[in-house]
Amino acid sequence: MITPRPEHKFSFGLWTTGWEARDQFGLATRPAIDPVEHLRRLKELGAWGFTFHDNDVIPFGASASERDAVLSRLKDAVEETGLVVEMVTTDTFAHPVFKDGAFTSNDRGVRRFGLRKVLENVDLAAELGAETFVMWGGREGSEYDSSKDLLVAHERYAEGLDAVAGYIKSKGYEMRIGLEPKPNEPRGNIFLPTIGHALAFISRLEHGDIVGVNPETGHEQMATLNYNHGLAQALWSDKLFHIDLNGQHGPMYDQDLVFGHGDLISAFFTVDLLENGFPSKPGAYTGARHFDYKPSRTEYTQGQFDAAAANMEMYLMLAERAKSFRADPEVQEALEASGVNELAQPTIAAGETLADLLADRSAYEEFDADAAGERNYGFVRLHQLAMRHLIGFGGK
Amino acid sequence: MITPRPEHKFSFGLWTTGWEARDQFGLATRPAIDPVEHLRRLKELGAWGFTFHDNDVIPFGASASERDAVLSRLKDAVEETGLVVEMVTTDTFAHPVFKDGAFTSNDRGVRRFGLRKVLENVDLAAELGAETFVMWGGREGSEYDSSKDLLVAHERYAEGLDAVAGYIKSKGYEMRIGLEPKPNEPRGNIFLPTIGHALAFISRLEHGDIVGVNPETGHEQMATLNYNHGLAQALWSDKLFHIDLNGQHGPMYDQDLVFGHGDLISAFFTVDLLENGFPSKPGAYTGARHFDYKPSRTEYTQGQFDAAAANMEMYLMLAERAKSFRADPEVQEALEASGVNELAQPTIAAGETLADLLADRSAYEEFDADAAGERNYGFVRLHQLAMRHLIGFGGK
Amino acid sequence: MITPRPEHKFSFGLWTTGWEARDQFGLATRPAIDPVEHLRRLKELGAWGFTFHDNDVIPFGASASERDAVLSRLKDAVEETGLVVEMVTTDTFAHPVFKDGAFTSNDRGVRRFGLRKVLENVDLAAELGAETFVMWGGREGSEYDSSKDLLVAHERYAEGLDAVAGYIKSKGYEMRIGLEPKPNEPRGNIFLPTIGHALAFISRLEHGDIVGVNPETGHEQMATLNYNHGLAQALWSDKLFHIDLNGQHGPMYDQDLVFGHGDLISAFFTVDLLENGFPSKPGAYTGARHFDYKPSRTEYTQGQFDAAAANMEMYLMLAERAKSFRADPEVQEALEASGVNELAQPTIAAGETLADLLADRSAYEEFDADAAGERNYGFVRLHQLAMRHLIGFGGK
Amino acid sequence: MITPRPEHKFSFGLWTTGWEARDQFGLATRPAIDPVEHLRRLKELGAWGFTFHDNDVIPFGASASERDAVLSRLKDAVEETGLVVEMVTTDTFAHPVFKDGAFTSNDRGVRRFGLRKVLENVDLAAELGAETFVMWGGREGSEYDSSKDLLVAHERYAEGLDAVAGYIKSKGYEMRIGLEPKPNEPRGNIFLPTIGHALAFISRLEHGDIVGVNPETGHEQMATLNYNHGLAQALWSDKLFHIDLNGQHGPMYDQDLVFGHGDLISAFFTVDLLENGFPSKPGAYTGARHFDYKPSRTEYTQGQFDAAAANMEMYLMLAERAKSFRADPEVQEALEASGVNELAQPTIAAGETLADLLADRSAYEEFDADAAGERNYGFVRLHQLAMRHLIGFGGK
Repeated sequence: MITPRPEHKFSFGLWTTGWEARDQFGLATRPAIDPVEHLRRLKELGAWGFTFHDNDVIPFGASASERDAVLSRLKDAVEETGLVVEMVTTDTFAHPVFKDGAFTSNDRGVRRFGLRKVLENVDLAAELGAETFVMWGGREGSEYDSSKDLLVAHERYAEGLDAVAGYIKSKGYEMRIGLEPKPNEPRGNIFLPTIGHALAFISRLEHGDIVGVNPETGHEQMATLNYNHGLAQALWSDKLFHIDLNGQHGPMYDQDLVFGHGDLISAFFTVDLLENGFPSKPGAYTGARHFDYKPSRTEYTQGQFDAAAANMEMYLMLAERAKSFRADPEVQEALEASGVNELAQPTIAAGETLADLLADRSAYEEFDADAAGERNYGFVRLHQLAMRHLIGFGGK
Repeated sequence: MITPRPEHKFSFGLWTTGWEARDQFGLATRPAIDPVEHLRRLKELGAWGFTFHDNDVIPFGASASERDAVLSRLKDAVEETGLVVEMVTTDTFAHPVFKDGAFTSNDRGVRRFGLRKVLENVDLAAELGAETFVMWGGREGSEYDSSKDLLVAHERYAEGLDAVAGYIKSKGYEMRIGLEPKPNEPRGNIFLPTIGHALAFISRLEHGDIVGVNPETGHEQMATLNYNHGLAQALWSDKLFHIDLNGQHGPMYDQDLVFGHGDLISAFFTVDLLENGFPSKPGAYTGARHFDYKPSRTEYTQGQFDAAAANMEMYLMLAERAKSFRADPEVQEALEASGVNELAQPTIAAGETLADLLADRSAYEEFDADAAGERNYGFVRLHQLAMRHLIGFGGK
Repeated sequence: MITPRPEHKFSFGLWTTGWEARDQFGLATRPAIDPVEHLRRLKELGAWGFTFHDNDVIPFGASASERDAVLSRLKDAVEETGLVVEMVTTDTFAHPVFKDGAFTSNDRGVRRFGLRKVLENVDLAAELGAETFVMWGGREGSEYDSSKDLLVAHERYAEGLDAVAGYIKSKGYEMRIGLEPKPNEPRGNIFLPTIGHALAFISRLEHGDIVGVNPETGHEQMATLNYNHGLAQALWSDKLFHIDLNGQHGPMYDQDLVFGHGDLISAFFTVDLLENGFPSKPGAYTGARHFDYKPSRTEYTQGQFDAAAANMEMYLMLAERAKSFRADPEVQEALEASGVNELAQPTIAAGETLADLLADRSAYEEFDADAAGERNYGFVRLHQLAMRHLIGFGGK
Repeated sequence: MITPRPEHKFSFGLWTTGWEARDQFGLATRPAIDPVEHLRRLKELGAWGFTFHDNDVIPFGASASERDAVLSRLKDAVEETGLVVEMVTTDTFAHPVFKDGAFTSNDRGVRRFGLRKVLENVDLAAELGAETFVMWGGREGSEYDSSKDLLVAHERYAEGLDAVAGYIKSKGYEMRIGLEPKPNEPRGNIFLPTIGHALAFISRLEHGDIVGVNPETGHEQMATLNYNHGLAQALWSDKLFHIDLNGQHGPMYDQDLVFGHGDLISAFFTVDLLENGFPSKPGAYTGARHFDYKPSRTEYTQGQFDAAAANMEMYLMLAERAKSFRADPEVQEALEASGVNELAQPTIAAGETLADLLADRSAYEEFDADAAGERNYGFVRLHQLAMRHLIGFGGK
């Protein structure tokens, strides 16, 4: 059926396909995968790129020679497979030193250590040609409101981000930062919990021009939020720098299911947005289609890679359905009837002043609000047309 | 025991104490309260101010003479009681005309009508001396991702906000706008669902300097978020322009319980923040302490005002507990031990450059991460001290 | 495309298609529909039956002659259309008298009144030939743990249920009760919040043999629970007496979306369960396919019935997909590989005693747990096969 | 201030105080604690008992001699400290063999192995004098609805439970089983997700007379449910056999906070229920006050035991507040005014038949529903009195 190819720009984190399935309540159920073998299998499956945390490949505290040996093998595998290192990110959460965060740890020594670890990793990312540098501050947060001065926590977080962004600029790297929001887990409350908080934070940075967001499907859904609404606000802000696709069933632990295996309808509209853009602006997103999922703990080696393949297959099946949805004349008619295109018209006409609007009696004094309230928007019909296409009954 | 007084700056929405208790599944259980009698009772209870939607007092579509008569009585009651009209807001959600929103309705006629209704209400707010103008876009949103062009929805929302803010400036009103975020209900997904999304949105407005947020306790908690973290980010952004205090039990329908009757610990820290500020910056918030709650549907007239009083009593009891918490030497020692004050120290020293940091071997190469990972932050002990104070066992 | 027919056994509550769209924050957006016209349209759409609350057709407090007139017209319309009155239910939530519940109100007079209202409605249900009598105790609950004696609340609830069930038996009616669980809304916490709580409650009733559950998709999902797991436990208990299908996006307000417009994957497996049964026991459910949804408030008259039709179309599309899923040899092979059929084998063999099991060294002492831990269950692959079928790529 | 003593019957799981703080995203931050030292510290803190999983003390797969050595030291420590082994439970979740569950694994070999492991542990529990045997089926469940035959999953679960309960009876042990419900994590959906589901399940067991529930505060709250309502239904069913107290912030990952550090108001009413019983039936619960929490990952050795102490202090502070709440004459008056005591009166009078009720015109035909709908139940006032007591302002 549908075959993933490099031009689809699918990429995987090595911590995803390679997850050994150690969880909060259980031991690892699978062996580690050798990185070289790992890349070969991703290539075979049709991936275009991959991503990793420093400590996915280089053990924490490794000596320079250990580091060099690991990276040398990795680079060989990159060359052999032709996979792109599209993003690199830093592990500032696994080691006990980061148990109260890295950039916002109450311990200044830890903050300096964390910042240095990130800066070192920026250099590695540049060396490998990664154009995106993701920062997930998974331990930046608290369980108790008393344990942080919440004002200076934001100060320190901004100081850290600006230091990294400033460093990237000072080195002349072609690299942008993608901040990854998450509401909770592993901390009780994580700072910058949603796309919105991250965008607001970025707007106050000195070097915010090269900082955007890397929103993850499940993270927004853990906060009951609509992922596609969040993507849209990020795109409206020109800040969708990267994306993490996966699946989740609303507010509970971070499930990291295969993309589309959580809220399928939302996934359909995510793909529609990424592939087809907005009705008023086709073709919104051109970056990597990056999956940040975990193969279920019940799966052994073959199952791990079956799960990787499932992400791409889901995406491609949904892309085909989204294409037919957009192409259906009945859908186009229904969009028009629902006023979806009408929303692109400015409320205040070109050249119209507020004074003009205030003088327009047809807009208010003589407007028949009751009649306007009787409009049948037809949103359910339109959505049902989308469902027909999603389920493969489109146009029938 | 504790008595609310005007200097506490407590205010109530007329739609709160006056709620007739009509809900999704049931009829009103209480009669309407005459506004004059309403203000008298609020005054007796110790309130300082009140707030209202236009249609809380003026029926939708009222003639000019009806409007004048209503307002005349209201002004007399204001004069009699000395209550402050501290905020006014517009009903853009109850009438069917707004069923798809006001500023982001797919119907341009509705958008123009909604904008005019808001502008008219700005004038009323100015006439009554209100310094805050709240905008809650409860119907701005969707149930289905197909029913909106999500890019231009943000364009239209910004256009509308800037029109209102520009109007305020053009008229020379001393007034600021407070945007009120909410994740869902009555729409499936509301635009600008959290404090973060609203702050990010404001950062891109032309007249964003007079636009801030009016965060409601329960609205953030409906999205599983920490209200106090949100307040802190708003304060860090100098955008906490108003506040809506109430109670909620996490993600479910909007409960609008009495303040403190939902998550009590969170309420304690809210009061601590509003009254005592951050450890690094005392005295953060000076605005109204505004309650946006609903007396339970089981309560009849006396019960409605008992519930109003309960809000103020909760606040004052918590304020007393927060004061003793801060004054306790053991707490001060515990804050120090937990590094809460240390977070105010910049990570990069004054005058230190990135090059200096990179050259500082003690920060990274020679830093003992394992030892730092063994620090006992003492957050649970600190929180338990807070609990002792909250429960009235502080210092014992 | 797919056409609903009476043999599909689709039924609708009159309060669903007929919802005037008055919600917590807004006025009605649609006119009432005359019941006769209502039934004609449902018939045209392909429905088999309908259901109603007493007060959907008979106003609260109607005189005997008003009641007779209403019912006479209703019976004529039933005769004309051939629609089946498959279930009747009682409104014990809208009128203020029930603001603290009916069977568990703290007010004994209210409890007696509520019980009488229900008993009267049992007679009506019998008169109309309904075989199911649903009881949704939407106001049975509390906002505050202090406001109920929670032990006797359960006593009173059981007393009321047994009175109704006993009455049905005493009258010789061919009728079973379906208790409908819901976690919250309109009360802060509703008694018998989930399928599980209702089943446990029923197990302790005197007349529990004619009492089962009427689980609603969205109600379980509001509590983060898996609807199909709940259905399975109800079926395992022989207690799935009726069903309410709709859509919901996890824990938030009660959305009552069209069936399948919430969690589509869950809806697919619901239809698979209802149509195809369990792998070990085909054909589990033969009752009405009843929809308890609300047409979105943005829809006007035509849109209301489009939404009704969408429920049936969703069901039938999913039924077709579920059929192809079960018929696919690759799916059968994958089910076998995943051990799904193996779960039907008793853990302790027929005739084996506990002593035999304890003496079986191969079961424990000599069992290779590490090897068993390396089994690739293949659940992701199996699920992906289901997704292919759901999206219409099955067998390709 | 308040000092825990053995008569308070506080007990701790060794996996709680001893948690090394390895989580989904990070390594252990604390060393293991020697069991003997562990018991000494619990004794010093004022605990009465302790509990454990087999693999908390005996490594999985240990030889008989290893096992004996470990148990010998443990028994010595029990004798030295006088702590009671009040409950024992089995680890059927950590090892990969249990990745698809134990009693409901699709793999029959795993089911037999799991059952044997549990039976062996029943003997250990009996040997140590434990009167409660808890079973938490954390891996019994699924991520995908396709991966289980949900009917036979319940069959197998019941078969397993009945085998264990039957074994206990056959050996003549004075021991009862406490089933522990949880909605999700580590599985996407766990079978028997709530107190209700577990009670319903137990009602269908052959040996259900010695099977009850062990409800955990946070587990119910993860499903948005009211813990105290759940406790009440368990008590009404005579099935509250054990209890796990901790703290949680609604639906998110399983936080296992200190008791009272989550929803404080709910914790107050839990303690009120456990200490003071129902208004109609004082003194409901006499078992262990068992804490199943985790010291935050930021805490080192001292912090771990500070957290343990915090649980007991929270409980005792709340017990004191609950006592003063019940003793306050104003509270008694308010309870009466709210009708809380009236709920104990049967709806149908002693000796009254259904025929009598139907003939009582004062109950229905002549009942003034509108007047009854105007009752001011006073629930907010009553709750506010509870808040005053909780915060230490009671009777002032």
